[in-house]
Amino acid sequence: MKVFTYKNLNAEEIKALCKRTAVDFDRIEPTVREIIQAVKTQGDVALQSYTQKFDGFLPDPLVIPVPAAEDVPLSEDKKAAFDRAFANIYAFHMAQKPGDLVVETMPGVVCRREARAVEAVGLYVPGGTAVLPSTVLMLGVPAMIAGCPTRIMATPPQQDGAIAPEILYCAALTGITHILKAGGAQAVAALAYGTESVPKVHKIFGPGNQYVTCAKMLVSQSDAVVAIDMPAGPSEVLVIADETANPEFVAADLLSQAEHGADSQVVLVAQSAGFIEETLTETERQLQSLPRMEAARKALANSSAVLVEDRAQALVFSNLWAPEHLIIASENAAEYVPGIINAGSVFLGNWTPESAGDYASGTNHTLPTSGYAAMYSGVSLDSFYKMVTFQELTPDGLRELGPTVEVMAQAEGLEAHRQAVSRRLRHLS
Amino acid sequence: MKVFTYKNLNAEEIKALCKRTAVDFDRIEPTVREIIQAVKTQGDVALQSYTQKFDGFLPDPLVIPVPAAEDVPLSEDKKAAFDRAFANIYAFHMAQKPGDLVVETMPGVVCRREARAVEAVGLYVPGGTAVLPSTVLMLGVPAMIAGCPTRIMATPPQQDGAIAPEILYCAALTGITHILKAGGAQAVAALAYGTESVPKVHKIFGPGNQYVTCAKMLVSQSDAVVAIDMPAGPSEVLVIADETANPEFVAADLLSQAEHGADSQVVLVAQSAGFIEETLTETERQLQSLPRMEAARKALANSSAVLVEDRAQALVFSNLWAPEHLIIASENAAEYVPGIINAGSVFLGNWTPESAGDYASGTNHTLPTSGYAAMYSGVSLDSFYKMVTFQELTPDGLRELGPTVEVMAQAEGLEAHRQAVSRRLRHLS
Repeated sequence: MKVFTYKNLNAEEIKALCKRTAVDFDRIEPTVREIIQAVKTQGDVALQSYTQKFDGFLPDPLVIPVPAAEDVPLSEDKKAAFDRAFANIYAFHMAQKPGDLVVETMPGVVCRREARAVEAVGLYVPGGTAVLPSTVLMLGVPAMIAGCPTRIMATPPQQDGAIAPEILYCAALTGITHILKAGGAQAVAALAYGTESVPKVHKIFGPGNQYVTCAKMLVSQSDAVVAIDMPAGPSEVLVIADETANPEFVAADLLSQAEHGADSQVVLVAQSAGFIEETLTETERQLQSLPRMEAARKALANSSAVLVEDRAQALVFSNLWAPEHLIIASENAAEYVPGIINAGSVFLGNWTPESAGDYASGTNHTLPTSGYAAMYSGVSLDSFYKMVTFQELTPDGLRELGPTVEVMAQAEGLEAHRQAVSRRLRHLS
Repeated sequence: MKVFTYKNLNAEEIKALCKRTAVDFDRIEPTVREIIQAVKTQGDVALQSYTQKFDGFLPDPLVIPVPAAEDVPLSEDKKAAFDRAFANIYAFHMAQKPGDLVVETMPGVVCRREARAVEAVGLYVPGGTAVLPSTVLMLGVPAMIAGCPTRIMATPPQQDGAIAPEILYCAALTGITHILKAGGAQAVAALAYGTESVPKVHKIFGPGNQYVTCAKMLVSQSDAVVAIDMPAGPSEVLVIADETANPEFVAADLLSQAEHGADSQVVLVAQSAGFIEETLTETERQLQSLPRMEAARKALANSSAVLVEDRAQALVFSNLWAPEHLIIASENAAEYVPGIINAGSVFLGNWTPESAGDYASGTNHTLPTSGYAAMYSGVSLDSFYKMVTFQELTPDGLRELGPTVEVMAQAEGLEAHRQAVSRRLRHLS
């Protein structure tokens, strides 16, 4: 990790420090476009052939039903862990249930807002080397609570055609309605456009590799008419540590981010050069015990430690950086909260490792990266609804409001807008 | 308008009827990219030169402050109308204020969610032939209530360099912090990247022509790290009318949509062929009195009337079409509400013209078009916030939850994630 002293940095250097490694989609975009076009026009056949090519298995049928939870072969301790995580995620997302809103803005003019679940959603769960059942819970639970009628989980099959039992168990817990045995850009295309066996969805969620991310971006601005959860980039953490923090814990947290991959972004912000040094030494020590040591080492090589003068400076920098995950490693973490503006999910205090939120505290782990925490929220129950507004005027309401509308329509030169009011008012006079 | 009988249509024909005219950005994209690149690299100079080229005026300074409302030269009746609209929009959006959420998902594990205003927003207000002060209110009011510290309104100057007093008055009402005298792709680029005189924003809102829309799409997937409100397309209305509707009013509503431009989309859904005929005749009659007759006539030529058998069929089709504006022209409008799934904003009953909501009922008029009402909400107070989640575990909370996290981390092969828990648990034992 490179160490910087904040007060010595000029504006340009701070900006450079906040800049994330840009993912270059130019190289893969032609391939992704070709895949999308093929699936759009040839449907199942293209989807099967790409899956055979990339995942080494030809799925037939492409879409399978979800087994009952009790039929999934999985150890009891794993089932208990997933059940616990499910319960916590369910509790926190259930509390986000939107109520209906009714406001009589003036006598006879009633405005309302009601939530409607998105009718069909696609939940992408990466496969390949890693098995990520936690992603199934993070996307499946809010989709279940919102009551989206069609909830398709797309995940690439293993070479023998199987889906990992951990994934199946979490799909069963969250009442996934369809499992699509495909991944990559081809799965995204199938969800966006629909095929003979895959229902078209309205919104696509979930993390993925560059091909998946690129495909999500392309279909979200295409004739598919589909939304995506948010822009995606490599995972990241910023840790603000003060003198009450524990270097061993901070090192473990930095490493749990770094092990995601060489492109993971890790930043340590501290008020003491000694603390930074101690933490870096401890990080090096812990690194030796990790199976993913190589990836973590590469990630750390691209990472920074920033020495700040005080808490205020730490927060200024953190808000500029806008981390996906923000850890406040301090016994006085609560005092930082009002000053936290730009962050995806925040971990308060020395007993709250990021991995608690990654898996099971109850918050969602699908979060904005690459600085997008300044303008995007993480996935929440809201992400599975859209809000519809309603208004209803009584004759008296129109009598009161009508003249306002007539004046404004005239100011904008929209005569038919004015007449839609005037003709009604004439009937009422 | 072309008339269709729903029960005679097959699935392909219904799909075709739901298809909107696709805007072809391929033709203009190279130009828009060039403009964005110029403003990104040359800043103010490029912005000024494009404004001179496209709007016939070189703004210097580019950014001006907002006058006090009382200093804007505007008739009292106009001021009163804008004040009334402001009050209603304020009341409805104020009621959307998010509360903080606190859930103890299990003993010692507290999850929270708090709203944070987006720090800098850009509000695009189209200029050119039309003056659209209502857009200033629709974007400025929620930005004001959320308390976004930087609220830049971008709007092209008139040829003499002036900004219309209606725009200035609404900017004053909503406490806009900067007025950028520029429009088009160049204004979007300046908001996205910032220039010497334009602060960089985090999110860009508002309607615009093809160049503005294309620029918003491009910057939202670029290194600018900026969000946009939603994909934009031509405005549209679908009217469901039953035997209690008034053909004169329905015709006026269809025309108030059609006058927006030749590409506006207008659909009438009714249960009686006689009602459709009567409404079309009335539409033709009212058309004669409109200054924007030619645009409206072209829009109507591309529009459809659909004869359905009953209310259920009307709703099935309307939900498939997913209109930006949905008018329920019926004395029994309330009975339709539970069946309305996909719509931006809904106008209930015979005394609620769309123009009431376009201007002053209180709901927002920035709404999803082109079928995006199936997965996007219109602009609301939420659009100006992002939600940050927090979690805090006590030592006992970690003792309880830790083993779950360890099992899940192990299942996903993420050893450092496990250790971040295990090392802490060791300290506690």
